Amino acid sequence: MTPFGERLANAAVACGNTACVGLDPHLDRLPGSLRETFEGLEGAAFRAAAARAVLSFNRQVIEVIEGRVPAVKPQFAFYEQLGSAGWQALEQTVAFAHDVGLLVVGDAKRGDIQSTGKAYARAILAGDGPLGCDAVTLNPWMGTDTLDPMLEIADAEGRGVFVLVRTTNPGSSELQSHGEPTAAHRLAATLGEVGNPRRGPRGLSNVGAVVGAQTPRDEVRILREKMPSAWFLVPGYGAQGGGASDALNSARADGLGALVAASRSVTFPRVAGFEAQPMDAIDAAVLSLCEDLVLRIP
Amino acid sequence: MTPFGERLANAAVACGNTACVGLDPHLDRLPGSLRETFEGLEGAAFRAAAARAVLSFNRQVIEVIEGRVPAVKPQFAFYEQLGSAGWQALEQTVAFAHDVGLLVVGDAKRGDIQSTGKAYARAILAGDGPLGCDAVTLNPWMGTDTLDPMLEIADAEGRGVFVLVRTTNPGSSELQSHGEPTAAHRLAATLGEVGNPRRGPRGLSNVGAVVGAQTPRDEVRILREKMPSAWFLVPGYGAQGGGASDALNSARADGLGALVAASRSVTFPRVAGFEAQPMDAIDAAVLSLCEDLVLRIP
Repeated sequence: MTPFGERLANAAVACGNTACVGLDPHLDRLPGSLRETFEGLEGAAFRAAAARAVLSFNRQVIEVIEGRVPAVKPQFAFYEQLGSAGWQALEQTVAFAHDVGLLVVGDAKRGDIQSTGKAYARAILAGDGPLGCDAVTLNPWMGTDTLDPMLEIADAEGRGVFVLVRTTNPGSSELQSHGEPTAAHRLAATLGEVGNPRRGPRGLSNVGAVVGAQTPRDEVRILREKMPSAWFLVPGYGAQGGGASDALNSARADGLGALVAASRSVTFPRVAGFEAQPMDAIDAAVLSLCEDLVLRIP
Repeated sequence: MTPFGERLANAAVACGNTACVGLDPHLDRLPGSLRETFEGLEGAAFRAAAARAVLSFNRQVIEVIEGRVPAVKPQFAFYEQLGSAGWQALEQTVAFAHDVGLLVVGDAKRGDIQSTGKAYARAILAGDGPLGCDAVTLNPWMGTDTLDPMLEIADAEGRGVFVLVRTTNPGSSELQSHGEPTAAHRLAATLGEVGNPRRGPRGLSNVGAVVGAQTPRDEVRILREKMPSAWFLVPGYGAQGGGASDALNSARADGLGALVAASRSVTFPRVAGFEAQPMDAIDAAVLSLCEDLVLRIP
């Protein structure tokens, strides 16, 4: 089975960039024609109508980005706030993205052990499960035994994990930078040991890491040294303030290894024409994203 | 608004114990009469049938435990493995538990920031959301700013959080015990600062902590000193190997403060009569649980 890291590399080479479009349906930013289908409703009726609007929006976005970027990344929270109707929209979004050939990174940030971890792996990664995402984001705080049930399916089915190693939100240093070496560095060393034997021909494995775009360069260098075979999933580009050079900072010498996520800046661009022609505005934002994150193979 | 810690204390006093029954529907352990409704099915048909079986089982369990324990704790993974059908069963389980007066702790172990954290808070805690749980388990790895969106709703609506501080799975020490003081101790100090000003008349707040039953006594004492106003949610009792004295180790001098979770040992007791009369077996297991965890007010 081809490791996820290789599948992602192939998709990045085919598209010519390492961009990942976040599908984070902020209800209050949807185009007015969709918002009006659920505004004023309450409870289950609101959630059902909003979930239909979310799915409709996602399908249009996916049609715009089809073939242009290697992956999309739905953030589960925005679907779960709509309950079971939201989960259904998530299922249908993942299926539609797969239909057009996009890889799907489930941004779920789960992390649990034993039978619970196995259930999450079935929920998110398993090919015969409700979603069958290609990869999932994981939270390692309980220990790296949280990876085991995920890797069991990932190894068998060519899927991958992105473990939260270093984020750049205001409180991120409290635990991640605690101790000497820092907890994040210790974790990175462990993930390197787990991932390196799982490398494919391009040297990329199915054990990735989330490393924020605003992580200081010195720290990025240390993390990359410890995890040479990891894809880094890089949030913080675009709307969150980071530029392309920061975001691509963690790429390897071969140009691969940094999958840069952009969500609001692409799907809800703050331009005058968004309300009138949202997909035209998104099309322009995707063009700019792909240019910014063009794959430079040395 | 009465803080969640006080609501939980009132419920514990009313029931005379500090037990929490985990609703973790392991499909392969359901009684045969329910298993046969989904065995042999596949895909969406399997998930829909299994979700109906889960809901039926949960309703029966809830009828057995009604009025006898203060709280139940559904583990989200076991519902999410059934996709949107599972989420619907989760919604209906929470609603049914609320109908009979049980508090509901959503064991979701989420942890995210800003708009994403807000969406998770709406998904799990908000009274007008799809679940409206009374409390949620949180993962603090990204930083204690992950608490902010949850506490906003918790403070306004009398709901609570249980932050993963110290678990006792094999890999739990990797990050939780990293550094000096350990990351868990540092986190506990922060949570104490966040929780103490939120105390109610009994001195219990809406900021709780997950602390495994097998945590060494010296460490439990340190954590309790740092978090005097916290309810500890204690996994690891019963099927996971811990006894009542370990599990109640972290209670305060007033007998309150340790909410002990028991899942498989109560809902899937390994006794001869389970297949024939599952609810009788569960009734006996609940009786034993309540005796073991009787509230001893000094």
